[in-house]
Amino acid sequence: MKDVISYGSSKVLEKIRNTNPLFVCVIATTKTSRIPGITGAGASPELTDYTPAADVELVMCGKTMCMPEIPQTMVGSAATPTPAVITKAALDLAEIPFMVADAGAAVKPNLPYVNVNEKPGEDIRTGKAVLGSEEIFRKGKLLGQTLSRLTDHLVIGESTPAGTTTAFGVLTAMGYDVKGKISGSTPENPKKLKRQVVNEGLAAAGFSDGDLSSEPFKAVDAVGDPMIPAVAGIAAGSSVPVTLAGGTQMMAVCAVLKEAVPEFNFENLPIATTIFVAEDKTADINYISNQIPGTNVFAVDPEFERSESGLKNYTNGAVKEGVGAGGAMMAAILKGVAVADIRRRIEESI
Amino acid sequence: MKDVISYGSSKVLEKIRNTNPLFVCVIATTKTSRIPGITGAGASPELTDYTPAADVELVMCGKTMCMPEIPQTMVGSAATPTPAVITKAALDLAEIPFMVADAGAAVKPNLPYVNVNEKPGEDIRTGKAVLGSEEIFRKGKLLGQTLSRLTDHLVIGESTPAGTTTAFGVLTAMGYDVKGKISGSTPENPKKLKRQVVNEGLAAAGFSDGDLSSEPFKAVDAVGDPMIPAVAGIAAGSSVPVTLAGGTQMMAVCAVLKEAVPEFNFENLPIATTIFVAEDKTADINYISNQIPGTNVFAVDPEFERSESGLKNYTNGAVKEGVGAGGAMMAAILKGVAVADIRRRIEESI
Repeated sequence: MKDVISYGSSKVLEKIRNTNPLFVCVIATTKTSRIPGITGAGASPELTDYTPAADVELVMCGKTMCMPEIPQTMVGSAATPTPAVITKAALDLAEIPFMVADAGAAVKPNLPYVNVNEKPGEDIRTGKAVLGSEEIFRKGKLLGQTLSRLTDHLVIGESTPAGTTTAFGVLTAMGYDVKGKISGSTPENPKKLKRQVVNEGLAAAGFSDGDLSSEPFKAVDAVGDPMIPAVAGIAAGSSVPVTLAGGTQMMAVCAVLKEAVPEFNFENLPIATTIFVAEDKTADINYISNQIPGTNVFAVDPEFERSESGLKNYTNGAVKEGVGAGGAMMAAILKGVAVADIRRRIEESI
Repeated sequence: MKDVISYGSSKVLEKIRNTNPLFVCVIATTKTSRIPGITGAGASPELTDYTPAADVELVMCGKTMCMPEIPQTMVGSAATPTPAVITKAALDLAEIPFMVADAGAAVKPNLPYVNVNEKPGEDIRTGKAVLGSEEIFRKGKLLGQTLSRLTDHLVIGESTPAGTTTAFGVLTAMGYDVKGKISGSTPENPKKLKRQVVNEGLAAAGFSDGDLSSEPFKAVDAVGDPMIPAVAGIAAGSSVPVTLAGGTQMMAVCAVLKEAVPEFNFENLPIATTIFVAEDKTADINYISNQIPGTNVFAVDPEFERSESGLKNYTNGAVKEGVGAGGAMMAAILKGVAVADIRRRIEESI
């Protein structure tokens, strides 16, 4: 297990060893991603609406159908491929089945997907980001009940452009100390802009930091995104262990779960991300995790410094995570796949 | 296996014994169901749009959410409960998981469902019943590929008001001899009206009986419904045995499959229905089955003559089948559930 770095209790990993997981990618968009400079998840602000659909098309079908090229993150003039290529390589090598759940993506993927919620979120600066997150949670829970009858381990990833900003919003509204701790998809991580956007949203909704510490759905409705209650719901409904495959965004999911399901057992909910998030100098996922008792963070290092392709940009802070890349790699490693094979497979595909 | 009546090769049943099935209900509507008198799947023509959504809500959640009451078939003044109550009892007793796939229902269920196709079908008298059935087939195939990695046996049911008329249309367009052989959800089975509606649709599309014998998607596009290519696609994509749970509508699915996938092995595709369809004096499913070499029909008799409730109307020809009731019962029986227990469970629920 040398390829998985543990920041939490390793007995959590014992529960998911020798399982045959099902990977579910939950997609959503909010108009927050249109704010220039806030996200790298798309070559331009307008294209961020296409990123989740293109990501899951790439994983399921090996090519994008809703747009001609795979989603790229532009950092200066360097294009970095979407983390969907990591997820695809890991799932394919480990023969892990893949499903898509829509929590509210503006552009729908051209493949069969589970409808949990249709409507995308608004710009969180309105203070009215999501319509009915509690209902999204309820449907997520039904989905978790169903899917956990079909597998012994669920791995849930997400693709939500500007999702670190909306996670920042929810965690702030719920009173967590996350200033300067939230990761982002670009090396510079525009934390000042994110903070400003969250402040504006909270003010518009009439709340201050921490006002919604025990009202997770109000926090999501005000300044969150529809992915968060959907993933929390799936986890709440599942009767088998769930790996949350993602970075700081999944901490917002944990915060919602903690309040919505007080008896929730986080020992069955490892959070798996990439080394690029876990060791992000501009953020601190473990600092956030420590504020939610019982949560355990794990990370995988795909050693992209050994790559000669655009993957190398990941080591400079581009992209970092998404589409459950870290969790997909961890699930593959738990099934005996070597991280070097995942890296080679990605390079063959891009 | 005395509770399963075999009209085909019983070795087909051997392949699905001792499996742990997943039941998928594919829902769709067409405006054909608004033609007065054509279907019993709803208390009024307008309510038929709600029937598929209400059916699957009933099976998954135990209650309807999109309408206040469970769907009923009115025969004179006698209300007969939807076959969804049969499906639910069988699946619950046998602990078979249940998923919903939308192939184009006008009213969407208030629960998570797989989106295969969104748009309902038109009135087949237009000759333009379905938009893009080949694309629906393609997405169904992707879904079949995914779901068959999560189970060792797929059971596919359907809820499609006026679906026997659209099946009649497709089979006629493809040159099958089905006059007087197609079942229906009312005791009188308005065959003359159905024939007239199909004739009108074929004329509007510019085709005669049998013109589309090797063009299944053109047949569906002209006078079919979106459920047919979705179910055919799921079956085509599946790598595990598939039970088609339904009556004469599933024969249309087989006809499409036979042309769309010439190498398709019908030995892995039992058709399971109720005794009310199989022994329907106004129709002949086995006569149709004999025209599609390799297909095997099975039927379950829930002995509703022993009931004192509205179920008794089934023995007089009301409803007969739907929501995969026959196949759900067969799957439950294959898992060791007694048919008398299914009947008692239904009676407790209505």
